[in-house]
Parts: sequence; structure tokens; C-alpha cells
Amino acid sequence: MRCVGAALDRRWRRDYRACMSLVNLADYEARARELAEGSTLDYYDGGSNDEITLRDNMAAFGRINVYPRMFRGVGTRDKNTTVVGSSATWPVIIAPVALLGMLSADGEVPAVRAATAAGSIFVLSTLSVTPIEEVIAVATGPVWFQLYVYKDRAASEALVKRVEEAGCSALELTADTPILGRRERDVRNGFGLPEGLWTPNLTAESGSLAPHAGSDSPFKAAIDALFYPDLTWDDVAWLTSITNLPVLIKGLLRADDAARAVDAGAAGVIVSNHGGR
Amino acid sequence: MRCVGAALDRRWRRDYRACMSLVNLADYEARARELAEGSTLDYYDGGSNDEITLRDNMAAFGRINVYPRMFRGVGTRDKNTTVVGSSATWPVIIAPVALLGMLSADGEVPAVRAATAAGSIFVLSTLSVTPIEEVIAVATGPVWFQLYVYKDRAASEALVKRVEEAGCSALELTADTPILGRRERDVRNGFGLPEGLWTPNLTAESGSLAPHAGSDSPFKAAIDALFYPDLTWDDVAWLTSITNLPVLIKGLLRADDAARAVDAGAAGVIVSNHGGR
Amino acid sequence: MRCVGAALDRRWRRDYRACMSLVNLADYEARARELAEGSTLDYYDGGSNDEITLRDNMAAFGRINVYPRMFRGVGTRDKNTTVVGSSATWPVIIAPVALLGMLSADGEVPAVRAATAAGSIFVLSTLSVTPIEEVIAVATGPVWFQLYVYKDRAASEALVKRVEEAGCSALELTADTPILGRRERDVRNGFGLPEGLWTPNLTAESGSLAPHAGSDSPFKAAIDALFYPDLTWDDVAWLTSITNLPVLIKGLLRADDAARAVDAGAAGVIVSNHGGR
Amino acid sequence: MRCVGAALDRRWRRDYRACMSLVNLADYEARARELAEGSTLDYYDGGSNDEITLRDNMAAFGRINVYPRMFRGVGTRDKNTTVVGSSATWPVIIAPVALLGMLSADGEVPAVRAATAAGSIFVLSTLSVTPIEEVIAVATGPVWFQLYVYKDRAASEALVKRVEEAGCSALELTADTPILGRRERDVRNGFGLPEGLWTPNLTAESGSLAPHAGSDSPFKAAIDALFYPDLTWDDVAWLTSITNLPVLIKGLLRADDAARAVDAGAAGVIVSNHGGR
Repeated sequence: MRCVGAALDRRWRRDYRACMSLVNLADYEARARELAEGSTLDYYDGGSNDEITLRDNMAAFGRINVYPRMFRGVGTRDKNTTVVGSSATWPVIIAPVALLGMLSADGEVPAVRAATAAGSIFVLSTLSVTPIEEVIAVATGPVWFQLYVYKDRAASEALVKRVEEAGCSALELTADTPILGRRERDVRNGFGLPEGLWTPNLTAESGSLAPHAGSDSPFKAAIDALFYPDLTWDDVAWLTSITNLPVLIKGLLRADDAARAVDAGAAGVIVSNHGGR
Repeated sequence: MRCVGAALDRRWRRDYRACMSLVNLADYEARARELAEGSTLDYYDGGSNDEITLRDNMAAFGRINVYPRMFRGVGTRDKNTTVVGSSATWPVIIAPVALLGMLSADGEVPAVRAATAAGSIFVLSTLSVTPIEEVIAVATGPVWFQLYVYKDRAASEALVKRVEEAGCSALELTADTPILGRRERDVRNGFGLPEGLWTPNLTAESGSLAPHAGSDSPFKAAIDALFYPDLTWDDVAWLTSITNLPVLIKGLLRADDAARAVDAGAAGVIVSNHGGR
Repeated sequence: MRCVGAALDRRWRRDYRACMSLVNLADYEARARELAEGSTLDYYDGGSNDEITLRDNMAAFGRINVYPRMFRGVGTRDKNTTVVGSSATWPVIIAPVALLGMLSADGEVPAVRAATAAGSIFVLSTLSVTPIEEVIAVATGPVWFQLYVYKDRAASEALVKRVEEAGCSALELTADTPILGRRERDVRNGFGLPEGLWTPNLTAESGSLAPHAGSDSPFKAAIDALFYPDLTWDDVAWLTSITNLPVLIKGLLRADDAARAVDAGAAGVIVSNHGGR
Repeated sequence: MRCVGAALDRRWRRDYRACMSLVNLADYEARARELAEGSTLDYYDGGSNDEITLRDNMAAFGRINVYPRMFRGVGTRDKNTTVVGSSATWPVIIAPVALLGMLSADGEVPAVRAATAAGSIFVLSTLSVTPIEEVIAVATGPVWFQLYVYKDRAASEALVKRVEEAGCSALELTADTPILGRRERDVRNGFGLPEGLWTPNLTAESGSLAPHAGSDSPFKAAIDALFYPDLTWDDVAWLTSITNLPVLIKGLLRADDAARAVDAGAAGVIVSNHGGR
């Protein structure tokens, strides 16, 4: 049923040797642009509106100068860390990415395997094509769950319970998407969920992400119809009250909001502008 | 008589389907550059002198970083607003643009129809090719009038009365054009008012915008001969005294000038550098 | 004898019509690059070392934002001005440029005629190919003289007297050239004074600007052999004491140096980095 | 035995005339890119990671504005200087560069000859292909020695004694390489010490810089296996205690570290980010 990514998988395998020369992230990005195509590539590669923030996200790293102290005795370096109770041996967390079924016939399975094997923490998107339980089953390290809150609050509460029971170690509540960013590439492509994919973490009624009428992309229209756009800090407090999992707030950009997150019971924040999307 | 824009109108219609893919302002700008030509395109597309300010006007938006607050309950968003008594359902006002007869055989009529249908406020240029009264007749929302003050003060006063009687809702007095900017593209093109166009809001003697001798463009020479270059804040106070319409001052760049505008009876200011022109 | 520029003069005349479309300084610069050639063009077009300052001199203007006050009654504008006793009807002074004989068979004569006819002040370079007296004879407005100080102090004093008697209205003492900038284009071209040109304002012994051995350009070697590199503010005071002409110091970049100039009797300063040369 | 650079030497000689037109450092850099090739060029030309610091090292010079004082009496200029007891007639010190045997069959000999003939101070790299003693034998001016500290501390102490006895005038201890930068060009090239080269300043066991397994370049793996990565300021104090030579600390970027260097007995610091490598 999830056959969309099969051709991609074959290409990855055939090009395995080429992958050996991937030395940095830019190499991986260039490689991904060769392998993915058209509207799929645009979905992952594009940003919202004029993509000014998308571009500046990268350029901003080049503006940071590091002035290290010398002779600090760095012969022994330890990359092990623990974040809200989850251990990692490689201190980079894999951000949630939707719909990996567009890139692999096995959906999120290869990604969670690779991430946890590398000692990272894998964050599963609400919009995965693989059910939470199957992801947890193949993980060899902690898995967190990225949460959008539905208009249907009972469905949201049920999802949180399912996430807990499946064995996820933390929740990431996305703060910066009361409505989805207007990704112009998706608008031009009329991007919607590809044939044959569905999102099993969503409730039955809405899991198909059926297109809606409007000037936005069908994908954006479906998302905006499904998720609750009116969240307040009271809703954050509600969420932290119904779960024993640590809740991280993803997508804050201001110090005052970080303080509000702590007041609402959050275990931490993730500074992000949603990748400029 | 106003036949200049007819070929353009045909092209717009023929290309209607292409217009469906206009996703952002840059798309519209690129499309306009395909449809308009030569000195007409240069008139709308160019800026004054080396066009440094023209270019920086766009780049400046990219330098603005927004740090939004999250979880503010934005499920219900209201774009309705009222500005100096005029209602808009789309909170973007259409800036006055001269001589739309160069782009359409129907002059300002298509623009005012589209703007007011979209819920915006349409600002009519003193230099329109369609008389004020015809513009008001087709508008389905508020129309404002952009005002230059003539050397002939009585003609100016008469124009203000005509604007009031026609049913405009506000006046925009342009502050930043004691003389017209030197638009080098216009100089190179010898730009003047095209054959067959006239500007019916101007008095009979000067309405033809007849070319004048000099090193500037014929258009600039005609404008500079017609409009009063010696305005002071006393003249602004005079204008606000002779009309019951709210007067907005367009083209201020300094806070101290904004305070002076209020002292002179203005209802508001419009920060602008005349589009870098 | 001064035949070097004759071919250029013919080209200027043949291309007179093309000159009618010169709308701004960039146009003139582009035109000059068409007419001058090779090492002559490089001499005028180039800067010192990596030309970083040369380029930044232009870019720096684009970083200046002007925030004009509006409604100031600018109908009457007056470009007339007086600078250290010299009147100008166009308030832009023509900076001294060496060796105009490379660009015209008539040396500095066309330039001084054009500058004074336009109401500007013409500043004659020490390194002109036309004698001071001939320049003054054709000028229809004030002429200033740009001064380098010779190692031969008596020759310098004689030159100042000659300038006074010829009828120049002011002296510009160049501050920023104790040695000439290393202009790499000149080094690559082996640039020296062209055959048939000499500099009649210099003393007989040194007027030929004969090439010297070394890794610099022959021109730089000749200049550095001729001019006194060891000037101090005492020498400036000496200069102001031997002349009744106002002395302007050209090439200062610091406020503290401007105060020193006034202390040494200067009538003014000209902020400049020698055009990045 | 050290034959790697012989072809390059021939090319340098054949192209001697071309070298006469090398006017600035950029010319030399361009020339070197013509003469060196492949992984050798990449070793010298590349930087660490994305080469952002490498590029900014050059651009940073363009951001420095100099505001010179004028009329300071600069007719007599003296480039002679003494640094920690070493005299130079040209006040630019030649930074240590490893493995010059890749560029010349005579290893470091041509470079030390040229540098000391020019009146500069030559700094010999620990990783030279020419023994210290041979370098000193051909030098006509001061030679300093750049020091890495081995994991084998006795070998390090022996090396310091050897440097002293050979007649070096100062030690430069590199601070910023507890591990070698990850130079991605070297990773792509699988860069290691070329056949036929060895590094005679290193102890016999490690002098071959034998490749090691891993995802880095063989060169980096060999260096990281050899040098002590755990240096602290106590080790710096140890070094200054076992030698009478002045010790300069190379690769500091912070004022507080400079103060620590003085406390540890250093004679000076060299501000550097290892050339962005």
C-alpha cells in the first residue's frame, strides 16, 4: 500500500557507492535533490512565502563567530547527554519530518533505524505514514512524538494516550503552526498527499488529508481544516496536565514565551522558526 | 479617444490562464514586464537617479525580522479595519498610480473595480485619465483622492470641492514631490504623455501635460511647470481648513514631520519615499 | 608637440551624438572607458593596491540614507556659493587630474573651459601639461592650483609665486601623498609619462618625469624622486606664511587633523582619500 | 629520496619569466594554483569544514578602514624590527607551512633561503621534510621552530633540546590544534603523506605519519594519533620551564587567553585561527 517511495529506495541502493562521498550536510542535500523529484522535492526543499527566512536560516550560521579558549585539556571529549530523561550518544536530535512515505516505501522505518543506531533521538511527526507502534518497534533508542492538537480535543487526548502506551519518551508540541505556512512551491504544484499514502496517527475521519477548495495547496487546506488554530497557553497547561511525559514546546522565538512555557508546565523549549516554512 | 491600452487589454484576456499561476507579487511584477513595453514599462518600473532607493525599498523588507508570540489564540482572525472613516475588508490600500490609460483602454476603471471588489481602498491619482466622477460611479467601496497642489491656487480649491462632491472619502496630499524625481529611464526615453491621453482632473490649460524644453523628460518638465513647488506647513493647514474630508500626508520620512502634520490638521500620515521615484 | 590626445579628440567629435545620451556620471564613465585605452585608461580608472578603497568609495554613497524634511518651501533654490573667496554658480568643484594631455591634444584647455563655463571652479594639477598661465588665459571663472611640495624648497616657493602671479585664486596642498600610492595597474603596464608630453609647471631638471629603476611603475618612481616626502605641519605653516592665497588642505580623513590644519593657517580642508589611489 | 617536488621545480624554472609579473599576493596565489595540483593544491588551498572562516579571513581585511594622520614627516621609514630577540629587516614573518617537500624536491630549503634573504624570519614547521639542522645551515637570518607537543612527552623534550642545539631562535607553540581541523577537501581526496616523503623532526616510530582507519583523511588520522590533545596552561608553563628560548603561543583569539599566556611564561602571542584550517 505504501509503494510511493519504492523507486526512490532502488535508486538509493544503486547509488550506494556515491553515498560514500557524502562528506557534509551540503552533500546530502545535493544528493537528495538528485533523488527526489518535482513536488516531493519542493515540499521538503521549499519554505514559506518568498523563502527569505529559509535562506537566512542557513546564512545566519555563517554570521556566528566562535572565539574558543585554548589549552583547556580537551583530550577526552564526551558527546553523551541526557535530555528530559532521554539519553543520546550523539547530541543532535532528528527533527520531525512529515510523510517520509514519499521518500521510502518503508516510510519512517529507515529513518528511525538510522537515527537511533547513530545514538540520536528520533522525533516522529504526527504526520508519519508509519504508525507510532511500528516505529517504536524498530527503534534502538528513544523516540519522541511531535504533536499537533486536533480541533477534535477528545481525539487529541486519545492520541496522547496512544503515544504514551506505544513507549515514546517525550512530546514535542508545535507552537508555530496555528495555520500552516504558505509554501508557494506547494501552491504552484497543487501539492497534496500522494495517492496510496495515509497518515495512521490521525483519526479515521481526517487521516486522508483530503484536499479542500481554496487558493492554497490542497495539503495546506487539509492541514488547516484538521488542526486547532486557536491554542493558548491554557491549552499548553491542559496538555501538560493530561500526560506524564515531558512536554517540549517547539517553535518559540522569544525569551518571554520561554518563560510562559515553563509556567505552563513545559519541560523545555526548542527554538525554531519551523525551518523557514 | 483613450485607445492606448487596448492592445494590452487583449493580451491580458488572451493570457488569462497564465494569470492563474500568479502566486505572489513577484509573479505579478514579472507578468507586467511581459505585457507592458518600452517607455511605458520604464515609467512604472523605474526609480529616480541611480535607483539605489528603489532597490533598497525591496531589500529593506528582507532585513526586518519578526519575532511572533505563540499560543495567542489566533483561530479567529479579522482583516476588517477602518481608516479615517473608510472601511476595508482587506487591510491593504492601493497606492495612487498615474496614467493607467497607458495600461488599459478603460483607464482606471478596471483597477478601481478590482480594488474595491477585493475590499481594499482605491486611491485615485490626480493624474488619472478617467474623471473622478466615472471612477466613483464604478467603485463598490471607498475611493480616496491623491492631491497635488497647482500653482493656480483657485484651481486647486476647485479640485478639492469637485473631489468632495464626487464622493471621495479622503484626500492624500503628496508631500515629497515639490519637483518630480529625475527618473533617468524617462530621460533616456524622452517620456511624455502618450498621444490620445489627457488628464481630466487637471484644469483645461494644463491638462495636456504638454512637453517643455529642457534636459529632463517632457513628462517631468510638464509636471514641474504645473504643480506648486513652494508648499509649506501653512499650505497644509490651509488645505485642511477648506475641506471636511480627512487629509492624509503621503511621503513623510521623519517623526518630527509627522508631529507637524498633526499640528497642521492632518488626519494621518503615510510613510513613503514615493517608491524610490 | 602635445599630440598624444589628438586621436582621442577626433573620436570625441565623431561620437558627439552619442554623448547626447550621457544622462549620469556612470554614463560618462562608461563612455570614457570606450574612448581611452590601455595604460591611459588604467591610470585614470585604477586605484592603489587591491582597489578595495576605490570600490568602497562608490559603495559608500549607497549606504547614506537621506531623511528630508517636507513642506520647507523649496520653490526657489539657489546653487550659487562662495568658497574661500571664489564664486561658483554650480556648487561642485572639479578635482585636480594629472596629465590631461593623455586625453586631449589641447591638454587641460578643454577641461578648464568646460568647468568654468558650467559655473564650477577648476582645480589645476601641479602635473598639468598646459602651463598655469595658458590655463588662466582661457578660464571664465576661478582657477585653483593643486600643489605638491618639491624636495627643492626654493623651486616650491618660486612655483607658489608663479601661481599667484598667474592669477589663481587658491592653493590646494595635497596631504596624502608623501609617496604615491602603489597602483598595481600602472606597475603591470610599466606606466610612465607618454612620449612627447612634459609637465611645464615643474622645474626644468625634473619636468620630464624620467623613469627610475625599481619595482614600481616608472611614473611612481619619478614622482617619488621629485616630491618632498617628509612634510610636517610646520611645513604647512611655512606655506601659509609665504602666500596670501587661501590654502586648502586636500586629503585629510580625521577631525584632529582638520583642527591641526586650522592651527597651521589653512583656510579649509578637503576630505578625500585621493580617490582610493 | 625527496623527489616529489622535482616536476614542480622544473615548472617553476620554465615559468620564471611569468613570475616577473607577480605584482601582489593574489597573483602568487593564482600562480600557485597553476603549478600545484589535485590533492596537494587542496591541502594548501583549503580550510576546515565549510571554509566559512577561510573565506572570512580574507574578507575581514577589507572591512578594516585605516584613518591615517597626515604631515607626520614620513620621509624616513624604517622597516627594521626585533621580535623576541630576533632581528628582521622586513617586518613580516613567514608562517610555518607543513610538508614543503610536496612543492619542491629540496623541501624547505628554497623557502628558508628566500625568506631569510628577504630579511624576514622563517618559521619551520614541526612537519617539515627537511631536518632542522639542514634548514639552519642554509638560513642567512633567524629561524624559529613551530612546535606540536607529542603524546610521548620525553620525545617532545628531546625535540626542544634538538631545536635549541640546532640554533633556532624561538619556539612557536601551536595552541589551536588539540585535534586537526576537519578539512573536507582532504577527506574527499583521501589525503595522506605522499610516497617518498617523511618528516625527520618526528620520532622514528611516528615519523611516517602512517594512515589510520576512520572517516577523516589519513593525514588527519595520523596527526591526531601522534600529537597530545590534552594540553593545558600547566603544560605551557612546563614548556617555558625546560627551555631558554622565547616561547610564542600561536593561535590565540581571546584577550583573556593572552593574559594566561603571559602568566605561563610565554614571550608573546600570535593571533591566528590557523588560516581557517
